[in-house]
Amino acid sequence: MIRFNCDYSEGAHEKILQRLVETNMEQTPGYGEDVHCDRARKLIKEACNAPEADVHFLVGGTQTNLTVIAAALRPHQGVIAADSGHINVHETGSIEACGHKVLTLPTSDGKITAKQVDECYNAHINDESFEHMVQPKMVYISNPTELGTIYSKDELEELSKVCKNNGLYLFMDGARLGYGLASTANTLSLEDIARLCDVFYIGGTKVGALFGEAVVITNNMLKPDFRYLIKQKGGMLAKGRLLGIQFEVLFENNLYMEISEYAAKLADELRDAFAKAGYSFLVDSPTNQIFVIMPDKKLDELRAKYSFSYQQRIDENHSAVRFCTSWATRREDVEALIKDI
Amino acid sequence: MIRFNCDYSEGAHEKILQRLVETNMEQTPGYGEDVHCDRARKLIKEACNAPEADVHFLVGGTQTNLTVIAAALRPHQGVIAADSGHINVHETGSIEACGHKVLTLPTSDGKITAKQVDECYNAHINDESFEHMVQPKMVYISNPTELGTIYSKDELEELSKVCKNNGLYLFMDGARLGYGLASTANTLSLEDIARLCDVFYIGGTKVGALFGEAVVITNNMLKPDFRYLIKQKGGMLAKGRLLGIQFEVLFENNLYMEISEYAAKLADELRDAFAKAGYSFLVDSPTNQIFVIMPDKKLDELRAKYSFSYQQRIDENHSAVRFCTSWATRREDVEALIKDI
Amino acid sequence: MIRFNCDYSEGAHEKILQRLVETNMEQTPGYGEDVHCDRARKLIKEACNAPEADVHFLVGGTQTNLTVIAAALRPHQGVIAADSGHINVHETGSIEACGHKVLTLPTSDGKITAKQVDECYNAHINDESFEHMVQPKMVYISNPTELGTIYSKDELEELSKVCKNNGLYLFMDGARLGYGLASTANTLSLEDIARLCDVFYIGGTKVGALFGEAVVITNNMLKPDFRYLIKQKGGMLAKGRLLGIQFEVLFENNLYMEISEYAAKLADELRDAFAKAGYSFLVDSPTNQIFVIMPDKKLDELRAKYSFSYQQRIDENHSAVRFCTSWATRREDVEALIKDI
Amino acid sequence: MIRFNCDYSEGAHEKILQRLVETNMEQTPGYGEDVHCDRARKLIKEACNAPEADVHFLVGGTQTNLTVIAAALRPHQGVIAADSGHINVHETGSIEACGHKVLTLPTSDGKITAKQVDECYNAHINDESFEHMVQPKMVYISNPTELGTIYSKDELEELSKVCKNNGLYLFMDGARLGYGLASTANTLSLEDIARLCDVFYIGGTKVGALFGEAVVITNNMLKPDFRYLIKQKGGMLAKGRLLGIQFEVLFENNLYMEISEYAAKLADELRDAFAKAGYSFLVDSPTNQIFVIMPDKKLDELRAKYSFSYQQRIDENHSAVRFCTSWATRREDVEALIKDI
Repeated sequence: MIRFNCDYSEGAHEKILQRLVETNMEQTPGYGEDVHCDRARKLIKEACNAPEADVHFLVGGTQTNLTVIAAALRPHQGVIAADSGHINVHETGSIEACGHKVLTLPTSDGKITAKQVDECYNAHINDESFEHMVQPKMVYISNPTELGTIYSKDELEELSKVCKNNGLYLFMDGARLGYGLASTANTLSLEDIARLCDVFYIGGTKVGALFGEAVVITNNMLKPDFRYLIKQKGGMLAKGRLLGIQFEVLFENNLYMEISEYAAKLADELRDAFAKAGYSFLVDSPTNQIFVIMPDKKLDELRAKYSFSYQQRIDENHSAVRFCTSWATRREDVEALIKDI
Repeated sequence: MIRFNCDYSEGAHEKILQRLVETNMEQTPGYGEDVHCDRARKLIKEACNAPEADVHFLVGGTQTNLTVIAAALRPHQGVIAADSGHINVHETGSIEACGHKVLTLPTSDGKITAKQVDECYNAHINDESFEHMVQPKMVYISNPTELGTIYSKDELEELSKVCKNNGLYLFMDGARLGYGLASTANTLSLEDIARLCDVFYIGGTKVGALFGEAVVITNNMLKPDFRYLIKQKGGMLAKGRLLGIQFEVLFENNLYMEISEYAAKLADELRDAFAKAGYSFLVDSPTNQIFVIMPDKKLDELRAKYSFSYQQRIDENHSAVRFCTSWATRREDVEALIKDI
Repeated sequence: MIRFNCDYSEGAHEKILQRLVETNMEQTPGYGEDVHCDRARKLIKEACNAPEADVHFLVGGTQTNLTVIAAALRPHQGVIAADSGHINVHETGSIEACGHKVLTLPTSDGKITAKQVDECYNAHINDESFEHMVQPKMVYISNPTELGTIYSKDELEELSKVCKNNGLYLFMDGARLGYGLASTANTLSLEDIARLCDVFYIGGTKVGALFGEAVVITNNMLKPDFRYLIKQKGGMLAKGRLLGIQFEVLFENNLYMEISEYAAKLADELRDAFAKAGYSFLVDSPTNQIFVIMPDKKLDELRAKYSFSYQQRIDENHSAVRFCTSWATRREDVEALIKDI
Repeated sequence: MIRFNCDYSEGAHEKILQRLVETNMEQTPGYGEDVHCDRARKLIKEACNAPEADVHFLVGGTQTNLTVIAAALRPHQGVIAADSGHINVHETGSIEACGHKVLTLPTSDGKITAKQVDECYNAHINDESFEHMVQPKMVYISNPTELGTIYSKDELEELSKVCKNNGLYLFMDGARLGYGLASTANTLSLEDIARLCDVFYIGGTKVGALFGEAVVITNNMLKPDFRYLIKQKGGMLAKGRLLGIQFEVLFENNLYMEISEYAAKLADELRDAFAKAGYSFLVDSPTNQIFVIMPDKKLDELRAKYSFSYQQRIDENHSAVRFCTSWATRREDVEALIKDI
């Protein structure tokens, strides 16, 4: 069985494992206050051209999302998100468990627009019952989105502007950020993101690390006491250096982008093959996630050899499914799949 | 200015005030453990033909909703509601502040169907990522709804059946229950409601009382330790007898239904007048709330003399607004308004 | 049975009831935005000489405490309180239910000292594991305390100073504030309290009202969006004018102090009678709560005629019990009790 | 600088690293549903002789504590713990952030007694204001405690009995469980613990793993939907197999006990050396944590070469400090330290 169902089926990039082995018996202070974390923070701030940013390392995506949002909001405030947003659908109500409503916007491609945000904000604030409604205070976007789409630089500029105008924090979930930046359709740089977002994270779990996400906070309002929140929410790793070491490796020789580009390229080849074979797509995603629509019969056939994830029924005989590539995908597996399409 | 904007513009029915005056210097134990609360509980259980029910008195609607829901759910569980449901829109995220997601269903008339509930439940439970999603465990309905509509006995039977089949608690917000029961379109009795819901409340604030809601719990699973929750959430009135006295008066000589019928009748007259004058309605509501669509010019004219609440824009020149009657509405005010329509 | 067990056994002062009757059919806007609330706010700000303060009305004490604390703190912050503090012992964990730890200080008389606060703060902040501990951000005191004692002006000045130095908010629970201000031992004025605390409340429930507490916020940091919190926590009364009317009456002709002094005087007489009869006290409380130590036999005797509350066992044959007076206590009842001592 | 300050200064046992390298490119399902987690679960259940237990893997201790407690308690329920308990002091209020009060018992050695638990329970339940207080529902103990002490089999039997009698869940935090089981003073087996506790965890982070704790749930009441809670609280590792692999290695050839015994032996040698040198101890701890009292001058001298953690001031010239050994401590470092004492 060859797994294309997600981008976290394997362990870590070999260079990361190797570094973990090399540093294993070093004695370091705990909780992210070691030299590896320090160096990783420095490398990430350089990559973002954000010398004043605060960088923190957390273990996983849900944990990161809930910690960032809990740290930013007062009890009566909520976070605006696409209805398909990960925090709205697939985190078991973690944001609500921290006390906050997710205010959803409809979307078909996983993205939300500046106009939608502005309207949502105004509908909540300029109503006579405004105090009876949740106060929007943050906008959550994923880039790439859960549907593999990405925001253009123009789109992010507009979102950022609307947020600033309305006093909203802009938070980007970058669980798959590398695969977005590596897309041939991408127009954003890490520097743009650091400039336009108030806080975002660079995903490691799905991009070469065993686990780990690097939160970058550029808005000074969001910086105070963030480590208290990490600890309270259970995200402060005792051996914090494990996270530092992994992000050191990912950011010291451009490895993060290199392996992302590898996955993006394989995804492009696979996407082309689907298109050439006459299949259409649920959504036009230019990153490592491909949402292809295929006849159920064909899918059954493929299931004998490949694992992929079910997305939704399209009609009586067709379904949309998701194929993912990643840093770990083997070229020969993609080639085999292309042949079998 | 004559206020038709809501059903809580005045104090309490004169009989309630009178009883409060008469009992004022009685010395009673606090926190709902007095003879008045006991008697009110007895009267309500009789009215519901639910001798085994637990009855509790709380001060207001939001407080009641959040207390009932917090008492019923585990942290990963959520409550299904209409997207127009009061807990979803107008309680400042109180349910989320207790840690629970409101899972919304689309509706145009404020009501949700058994089919919608069933589909929502199955979509959450029969998915391979089910543990990554909130687990539906309760269904919240309002009767009358926020749009003045009511559930028929058949509809409530079906909802109840789907809930039982799926292990969901059915909770009815009865903030305006009297006005629903008093509607000429109504097919439900208090007894039906007690039989079909696991928990519901009988609203006092909008139906003759100064304030107060009577929660009726019929499902044994929801009974244990409910008073702890009332206290923790700030809803346990020190002088609990104030609530007992009010519900005693409301339920001792059928006053609750009598004053509800009075309001329903005035609403019917007003509704007929709007219809006769050629206006259409946003929603066909048979209770004390009337959502009429009128030209903005006409509305401006009426605003000089009457207060009503703005609902939504219909087109460039028309808006939907809400007129409410209540136990306190003066017949002459309705007559004046009818003339001015 | 004559009840001395608490100070909320009766309804409201007759002037309040009378005003409720007089205003009953007035039509007012809801949620505290009516003329009665406005006037009550004005009267209270005048009484406190705090023209810039925000004044809000809530229904009860637990609700007020949890709303104020939830509004003030970020998730990792806690509130320092006496271990006997109401929020620590008798509110069913309402503060923790809002996510915050109560950091307790030992006390034998219900009061905490500036020195204790300073030490507690420093122990949490100047530790190498400071981020692993809750961050103290608020100090909660009750005045009178749960043991009937009161803070002197000097003590409150010192507490206030330590709080300001350490960036802590000082919050006074004034559920029985009238009885404290009316004590012959009192050295504080409402004006002092408004100047020295960041937020406090003036209790109505135990001092003449049917129910209701008036929160006074003097620190600008605590003002924004407070009404959102009131709504979310279930404390925003639909017919808010009920609270406004009550506080209008209490503050329009010095009624609040007048009835408090009445209760204080009766307590003094009762206290003297206990002392004269040779009984000692658990704590030297100069307000309406008397904690007297008596032989169990004598207590059994008194129980036939009087209700009082059990505090704690002292030795094999003696217990401490609490007798309360209030605005509603009848002079003849006190005289009867004095005779029976 | 040689670090004796804690037991999480290094990475992982070499066998664990080696296995991670060997399995790195295996493709497995995520979220703990892989073959490695399955096998680790099996090995742990065998080691505990608890075939019916549920075993879950989480990343860290705070996360595990908050997830277990949030899963077990209703909103009005609290957890009893030693005042020195980790959840009470060093988890930034994580339990309160989940809504629950920690009810503390005084202790000088980190342990609590069955008698204390019984008294605490009864004080909360058999009081006339019981509904105004938090309801105790769980007892949290650490074994070894934060002060390095351990519970005897008799003590745990008694605690378990009191808990069962009072309907309380008994939860053991086993962050350092290996070092407790390996103590020469120990009388408990994993099997005893599984039999006597309702839920406990076997710590990996401090005992040979990179990170990870294995929760063992034996009480059926605590089993339903636990994975939902893990996900919601951010503890469900995408690459769950990382945890499975580590616990497989730790439990497949008795490695867990072997490395724990190694650390325990080194601690014994160090403890003996301190005693021989005439130093006394803050607490008589028979595990890998040694709390020794030394002159400040001597400590300054040692600080030049060794890192250890400061516990508390004893008198003007003496302090208590903590030295830890672990699976990773080098014998030569202990020997050097012994010489320098």
